Amino acid sequence: MGLHAIILAGGSGTRFWPLSRELAPKQMLTVFGDDSLVVDALNRAQQVVGDEGHMHLVVGATLIDELRNHLLSHEVWGSADLNYIIEPAARNTAPALALAAAVVMADDPDAVIIMLPSDHLTEGGERWIATMNVAIDAAADGSLVTVGLYPTSPETGFGYIQARGQAEGQPGDQADIAVPTALPVKRFVEKPNYADAKRYVQHGNYYWNSGMLVARADAILQQLLDVHTNNPTSSDAAKNDVIVATARAIAANSDDGAGLQAFTALPKVPFDKAVLELSSKVKVVPTCIDWSDVGSLLSLEALQGANERGTRVIGQGIDLDSHNTLNYSDSRLVATLGLSDTVVVDTADATLIAARDRVQDVREIVRELHRRGVPEIRQSQTSLRPWGSWTMLTRGTGYQVKEIEVIAGASLSMQKHQQRSEHWIVIAGMADVEIDGQQQMVGAGQSVFIPVGVLHRLSNAGTEPLRIVEVAVGDYLGEDDIERFDDQYGRDT
Amino acid sequence: MGLHAIILAGGSGTRFWPLSRELAPKQMLTVFGDDSLVVDALNRAQQVVGDEGHMHLVVGATLIDELRNHLLSHEVWGSADLNYIIEPAARNTAPALALAAAVVMADDPDAVIIMLPSDHLTEGGERWIATMNVAIDAAADGSLVTVGLYPTSPETGFGYIQARGQAEGQPGDQADIAVPTALPVKRFVEKPNYADAKRYVQHGNYYWNSGMLVARADAILQQLLDVHTNNPTSSDAAKNDVIVATARAIAANSDDGAGLQAFTALPKVPFDKAVLELSSKVKVVPTCIDWSDVGSLLSLEALQGANERGTRVIGQGIDLDSHNTLNYSDSRLVATLGLSDTVVVDTADATLIAARDRVQDVREIVRELHRRGVPEIRQSQTSLRPWGSWTMLTRGTGYQVKEIEVIAGASLSMQKHQQRSEHWIVIAGMADVEIDGQQQMVGAGQSVFIPVGVLHRLSNAGTEPLRIVEVAVGDYLGEDDIERFDDQYGRDT
Repeated sequence: MGLHAIILAGGSGTRFWPLSRELAPKQMLTVFGDDSLVVDALNRAQQVVGDEGHMHLVVGATLIDELRNHLLSHEVWGSADLNYIIEPAARNTAPALALAAAVVMADDPDAVIIMLPSDHLTEGGERWIATMNVAIDAAADGSLVTVGLYPTSPETGFGYIQARGQAEGQPGDQADIAVPTALPVKRFVEKPNYADAKRYVQHGNYYWNSGMLVARADAILQQLLDVHTNNPTSSDAAKNDVIVATARAIAANSDDGAGLQAFTALPKVPFDKAVLELSSKVKVVPTCIDWSDVGSLLSLEALQGANERGTRVIGQGIDLDSHNTLNYSDSRLVATLGLSDTVVVDTADATLIAARDRVQDVREIVRELHRRGVPEIRQSQTSLRPWGSWTMLTRGTGYQVKEIEVIAGASLSMQKHQQRSEHWIVIAGMADVEIDGQQQMVGAGQSVFIPVGVLHRLSNAGTEPLRIVEVAVGDYLGEDDIERFDDQYGRDT
Repeated sequence: MGLHAIILAGGSGTRFWPLSRELAPKQMLTVFGDDSLVVDALNRAQQVVGDEGHMHLVVGATLIDELRNHLLSHEVWGSADLNYIIEPAARNTAPALALAAAVVMADDPDAVIIMLPSDHLTEGGERWIATMNVAIDAAADGSLVTVGLYPTSPETGFGYIQARGQAEGQPGDQADIAVPTALPVKRFVEKPNYADAKRYVQHGNYYWNSGMLVARADAILQQLLDVHTNNPTSSDAAKNDVIVATARAIAANSDDGAGLQAFTALPKVPFDKAVLELSSKVKVVPTCIDWSDVGSLLSLEALQGANERGTRVIGQGIDLDSHNTLNYSDSRLVATLGLSDTVVVDTADATLIAARDRVQDVREIVRELHRRGVPEIRQSQTSLRPWGSWTMLTRGTGYQVKEIEVIAGASLSMQKHQQRSEHWIVIAGMADVEIDGQQQMVGAGQSVFIPVGVLHRLSNAGTEPLRIVEVAVGDYLGEDDIERFDDQYGRDT
């Protein structure tokens, strides 16, 4: 039996705009700690699967480059053996999990999968490891094992899992539960109303659905097929056979265009609906680990206690007399004055101001911005690259200015541009610059000029990060005016 | 008799932050039209005083450079004959007006002064000229002639002037009043409560106090003295003799340190209190010109009609479902969602979000920011210079990047820096660059390097604006590391 962590890293996180962007969704944000949520998920998974385990990330084709760049620049995971499972299209978790199970099984027929969302904030450590080990043991007989959180309040934003029977210990004495147990599941409940949620909390055997799952890979595929057989009239399971067949076809031959096309034609159906709510082989391990689904911008309030008026100023802001208000800013000066129940989230290039009870509707703002085609929903001012990152400082008619950071030892591709000349001014570190075949070292305060059409390459020759300011001048400055040669990251455009 | 326009241009405009800054107060903002409010005031004054008239600007010592730079870059006023009367310190309008009167009288004993605030939004043209001509005529006998606006609503934010008797025509038929008349003033009323304001509107001979004044210069000084004589117990007039004496002393010898010091010791007293409310020689010319005192950020609402929910999006923003809300942004993407009665004003480096009924308290925010010493209250990202402007694009550890625009034919000073090297990349136009005695022409896409400690000068050699990006690299990058030589604007620091 091999342990395979499957991190679902393809989420779009539109509820976290303007902090999140299409190319930098919630799981890639470093807001809640030193690391991003997806790195946190990798760290937690590692604690469970150990050094012998395997790490997989499921991600969509549109996000793979950004995610890879994000992880490549991490000091531990940048050099780790990570397997990327690419969803040809976003089809929700039933197709994604089937694909992951089929891919993993191709190399390891006895694989046990630990599937984790990448955009939740969860405690690692002893209680976490104990919980997951119980789930792994419980999955040995082919069960699909979910993880349930003891509900500490009547949340209406989560689904609930009702167990048959009850875990030892009651919600009141969660902290005392030393050894979690796996219980059979009676039913799944979708987001309830407040009265029901209150009842569930009191009832004692309802748990918040964490979205985590532990199961043998073969059991995942087999259950997809079995629930369809056992529930021939269920529309949720109607396509399960096609899902499994498609996943297996892609796993057997990942370059098969037909398979990829078939995947794209699959229904968007969550694994909970397609399998868990219909299967009799589902268990739940109740646990009291700290957990948050980081479901809205209000999650930012966890970063800091409120003042006597219920208001939080996090970052560079200032507040006078606001009540129950969040003033969050990355880097700019944001002043709030006499507001009530308002959420302000400020970033370098975009600001959201929402009524507190409307934060979930940020999705509507994003939808409208999408319709207008504004760049601020696609990416932030900073773009992660395999060699480091660049930050757009300004874009004007005929020129743009970027700050570029290159990690020690890294190189950009050998490249040239048809439409722009570039000036590089070194701010810190030591650059190894090749222009038209001539190599030179360029230190802080020095600069080089790269004319239109001339081959050039930038490398960090030092042991510290290299920082340069790039001023590009030309009539056309799009990212697609890069002709790459000899790229150490295998990119050719 | 010479006509002298006196534009009071020293206001600080803290109620307009973050649009206004200490070094760019409200009167210098270009928000309500193609020109700034102070340029509008100059244009209006010109219509009245004509080509033979004289133009004076009263401004504080801290703001004189910024105001001069602001006007120097204007295509008409940049080359006009403007006289700057410098207040040694901000002492409100009684000392300021006394100083202006004394300065003007020194050259022109028969001077008639037309005093205009520089930060109001007022209609020019025929009705304006007719109004001011009536005021000029009425001032011939030594009267102090104010301008009153027909009140169109019971405003509690303005002072009112009550006339003895009544102008021809009633508020209801303002538009029909062809010829304004000057009426004797019965009394001045400070900002009233709502019930009183309502009564004033109905009464028919109350007018909003516009803050404009027409009077002979000698009458201004004489009335300062007379009201003190006639009201020996009035504390508001108690220092009038000292004010006049100090103003005359400075006018006689503007380099007299003692006079400047005496001015700084004067009380901060408005001319309304020190003279107008006490004098029997005050008249009012009622007029129905369009007028706004631009008293708060809510004045921005005049720029655009509201949608069906009472909400305005002015600039780059987007709104969903907000009521009675202003979403104003210079340049950035600001999204508002489900707000009520909220004012959002966004600039490149700072954002204010205020409850609608608290916009006047922006002053408190500014006071607090002042206490914290944040740069965002002092100046915006753009600084006007006599030769054009610069805009700070970014400031990082050890470097800063500016965009510099030089107007055709202009030159920066010959200068050098002790702590930083500079790279200039020309974006548009043709630069004439002198470095260490060597002159060279630098065109778009080309760049030059200025090492630490080397004399250099930048000039615009072309007929179009010259735009360059300047990357400065060094441990210290403050504006005070500039040693100037041969500055065509007479600056030596």
